[in-house]
Amino acid sequence: MSTFDAVELIRTKRDGGRLSEPAIDWLIRAYTDGIVTDEQMAAMAMAIFFRGLDADELTRWTNAMIATGERMDFSSLSRPTVDKHSTGGVGDKITLPLAPLVAACGAAVPQLSGRGLGHTGGTLDKLEAIPGWRASLSNTEMLAQLESVGAVICAAGAGLAPADKKLYALRDVTATVESIPMISASIMSKKIAEGTSSLVLDVKTGSGAFMKSVADSRALAQTMVGIGTAAGVNTVALITDMNAPLGRTAGNGLEVAESVDVLAGGGPSDVVELTVALAREMLLCAGIDTDPADVLASGKAMDTWKAMIRAQGGDPDAPLPTARHTEVITASADGYLAGMDAMAVGLAAWRLGAGRAVQGEQVQAAAGVTWHAGVGDRVAAGAPLFTLHTDTPERMERAREALADAVTYADSPVDRGPLVLERISAT
Amino acid sequence: MSTFDAVELIRTKRDGGRLSEPAIDWLIRAYTDGIVTDEQMAAMAMAIFFRGLDADELTRWTNAMIATGERMDFSSLSRPTVDKHSTGGVGDKITLPLAPLVAACGAAVPQLSGRGLGHTGGTLDKLEAIPGWRASLSNTEMLAQLESVGAVICAAGAGLAPADKKLYALRDVTATVESIPMISASIMSKKIAEGTSSLVLDVKTGSGAFMKSVADSRALAQTMVGIGTAAGVNTVALITDMNAPLGRTAGNGLEVAESVDVLAGGGPSDVVELTVALAREMLLCAGIDTDPADVLASGKAMDTWKAMIRAQGGDPDAPLPTARHTEVITASADGYLAGMDAMAVGLAAWRLGAGRAVQGEQVQAAAGVTWHAGVGDRVAAGAPLFTLHTDTPERMERAREALADAVTYADSPVDRGPLVLERISAT
Repeated sequence: MSTFDAVELIRTKRDGGRLSEPAIDWLIRAYTDGIVTDEQMAAMAMAIFFRGLDADELTRWTNAMIATGERMDFSSLSRPTVDKHSTGGVGDKITLPLAPLVAACGAAVPQLSGRGLGHTGGTLDKLEAIPGWRASLSNTEMLAQLESVGAVICAAGAGLAPADKKLYALRDVTATVESIPMISASIMSKKIAEGTSSLVLDVKTGSGAFMKSVADSRALAQTMVGIGTAAGVNTVALITDMNAPLGRTAGNGLEVAESVDVLAGGGPSDVVELTVALAREMLLCAGIDTDPADVLASGKAMDTWKAMIRAQGGDPDAPLPTARHTEVITASADGYLAGMDAMAVGLAAWRLGAGRAVQGEQVQAAAGVTWHAGVGDRVAAGAPLFTLHTDTPERMERAREALADAVTYADSPVDRGPLVLERISAT
Repeated sequence: MSTFDAVELIRTKRDGGRLSEPAIDWLIRAYTDGIVTDEQMAAMAMAIFFRGLDADELTRWTNAMIATGERMDFSSLSRPTVDKHSTGGVGDKITLPLAPLVAACGAAVPQLSGRGLGHTGGTLDKLEAIPGWRASLSNTEMLAQLESVGAVICAAGAGLAPADKKLYALRDVTATVESIPMISASIMSKKIAEGTSSLVLDVKTGSGAFMKSVADSRALAQTMVGIGTAAGVNTVALITDMNAPLGRTAGNGLEVAESVDVLAGGGPSDVVELTVALAREMLLCAGIDTDPADVLASGKAMDTWKAMIRAQGGDPDAPLPTARHTEVITASADGYLAGMDAMAVGLAAWRLGAGRAVQGEQVQAAAGVTWHAGVGDRVAAGAPLFTLHTDTPERMERAREALADAVTYADSPVDRGPLVLERISAT
C-alpha cells in the first residue's frame, strides 16, 4: 500500500480537493493502526464537515472502513437476507415487531443492533428488559438461529468495521458527528460488513430525530442509498415523521410490552402502520410476495417473536419488570392535542433512567414515560396525560421539567399528518 | 473560572457562532492544562480556519494565550522599547542590521527571536555562525543589555505564551497553520507578552513568503495591527515584496557577513532600503526624531552591533566560517534578469544545510546560496549566477535541482518594483 502524508491529505480536503482512492485506503488503515493520530483525524473530520465527500470518495471511504474488519457471510442460508436500520427516534421500537414479522414472511433478518446513548433508546437495552434474554451471540449461533427462526436481534461484534468504531468515538468528542457523509459511511460500513443482501433504511425527521429537516433527511437517505447500491446491497429508504414520539411508550420494558401488543394484533395504530410499511419494503427488496398485514393478523409473527426470544435464552411469557415509583401528569387544558414534542418525551424517559449519560452505564428496565393520548386526540383538563416510571424517585423532578412544555393544545381536531413522508430508492 | 463543554464550543464555532470571553479564557487554559484534548483543539482549529474569529474574539484569544505564561516588563528602562517582527522571507536578515541601528538612534530593541524550520532561516541560527555568540539570556541579563547597549537579539523563553507553543505544534501536524486569525494570535501573543511598547511588523508577500497575495498579506497585517492596538501596543505594519529574495545571500554566516556590510555603509541596496524604512517606522512609533540613514552612515550602528555581539559572548571581529565545498551555476542566457524565485532560492539554501527539516536538527553555519546578480541586472550567458556553499557535497545536486527554473530572463531592462508596497496602521 502506498504511503501518504496525513497533513497533505488534510490540506487537500480543507481546500476543497478530492482524496484519491489509494489515499483514502491509506488514511483509514493508518488511522486504525494509530499512524494517523486522533488530532489529525479530528482535523480531517472537521474539513469533511465543511467540504463533504463526493459519491466516489464516500464509497471508497466506506469500503476502506469495512476492510479494517471482518465481513459476515450469509450466502449459505436458504432464505434471502434483509435488514433494517433506523436513524433513531423516540419511542421507536419498530425493530421488535418488525424482525419477527418479516421472518415469518420467509426472509432471514440479521438485525445487529446497538445500545442507546442520549435521548433515543437502544434496541438491545429494550430486549434486555426480558428476563434471561442475552444480546451476545457467536457467528455460528447467529447463523443457526437465522436458518431455524429467521430472525435474530443481537449485539454487533467488535470485529465489524473497527475503523468506524474508533472514528465514531472521535467524532463524538470533536463536534463532527453532524456530517451527512460521515454519518452515512458509519451506518453503511456496519450494515454492508454484516453481509445482508437487502437493506431498508428508516430515516427519521423532526424534533425528536437527529435530522430536524426533511431536506437534511432526504440528503442523508440519498447518500446512504447511493453507498448501499454501489456496494451491491439492494437499498431503499423511507423518510418518516419524528416530530411526535411513536406509539404510547418510551422506555425499555414499556416498549417491549407495546411491541408484544402489536404482535398480538393490537397496539398503537402508528406503530402498526410503520411496522407494516417497513415490512412491505423489506419483502419487496427480498423478492418475497407476501402481505405482511395478513401475516401479522395470523399470529405467525408472534410465534416467530417467541421463538426468537427463547433462542436467545429469554422467556417471552415472563412478566416484564415494573417501576417501583410512578407519577401522573395531567392535561392542563381542554381541547385537542396539537403536538407532543418527541425530544421532550425522549429526554424525560432518559432522565427517568431509561437511557445512559455515558457509555457502559446501567439502564433501568422499567423506567420511562407512557402517554395516554396522542396527537389529534381529545383531552380534558385534569385527565391523566403522562405517567412517569422510575425505580429512583429523585429522578422525577427533572423528567417533569423536560415535559413542562411538551404538549400543545388546539380548539379543533388536528390531523397528525402522514407517518411516511418519502420513499428514496436507487436512481 | 467557569467551566465549559469543549464539544459545545467546537459546535458553536463550527456553526458560525461567536465564542464568549469566558469561553475563550477557559478553552485556552484547559487546553494548556490538557483538559481539552489535542483532537478537540484540532477540530476547533479547523472550525476557526473556516469560520474565523472576529476582532473581539481574537483579542480575547490572544490575551488568554498570554495569560498562560509570564509577561515581561521593560518599564524600568530609560529608553522607549520598540520591536520588529517579520513574517519570514528568503534572505531576510534585516533584524541583524536593524536592531543595532534603532538602538543607536536611542530606542531599546528587545528582539526575541526563533530558529528556522523550512525554507526561511531563523535569526538565532544566523547569529550562531559568529564564534562564541550565545542565544540564551536570563531576563536580568536581557534587561541589563537593553539598558547598556540598547539592543538584544536572543531566544524567546519557554515561559512566554506556552499555550501558543502547544497550539503551534498542533496546527503544524493538522494542516491548520494557514489561518489568518490563528497566525495573528500566535505572533501577537508572543510580542505582547514580550512587553514592548511599540511594534513594527514586516509582512512579506509573494512567492517566497507565507502569504502569496497582497490581499492575504493585507488581511494579516490589519488583523495583527488590530490585536496590537487593542492591547495598547503602538503597532504599524509594512507589506513588503518577497517575490525575489532579499540582498544577495541566503544562509546563516553568509547573511551575517552581508549584514555587517550594510552596517559598514555598503551592502545590497534592497537590504539597506528596507532596513532604513523599518527603522524609520520603529523610531516614529517610539517617538524618536532621528534620521536612521544618518546614524547608519555615521558608523554608530556598527559600534552598537559590535557591543551587542560582545555582550552575548561573540567576537564580532572573528572570521566567519566558510564552507568546505562551493559550486558555481552560470547564467544560461544573455539578457536582463526578469525574476528570481525566492522560494527556489530558499529551498536550495535549506537543502545545502542552512535550515533544518525537523526541530532540533543541527544547521551548517557556512551553508547557503549567494547570487551574483539581482532582478533588473544585465547578465551574460556563461557568467556566474549562483554560488552554492555546503560542508556536505552530496547536498549539491538537490540544491541545483531547486534552482533549475529559479531565474527568468528578458531582452530589455526590468524594474524590480517597489520593496515597500503598503503601510497599515491603526484606523
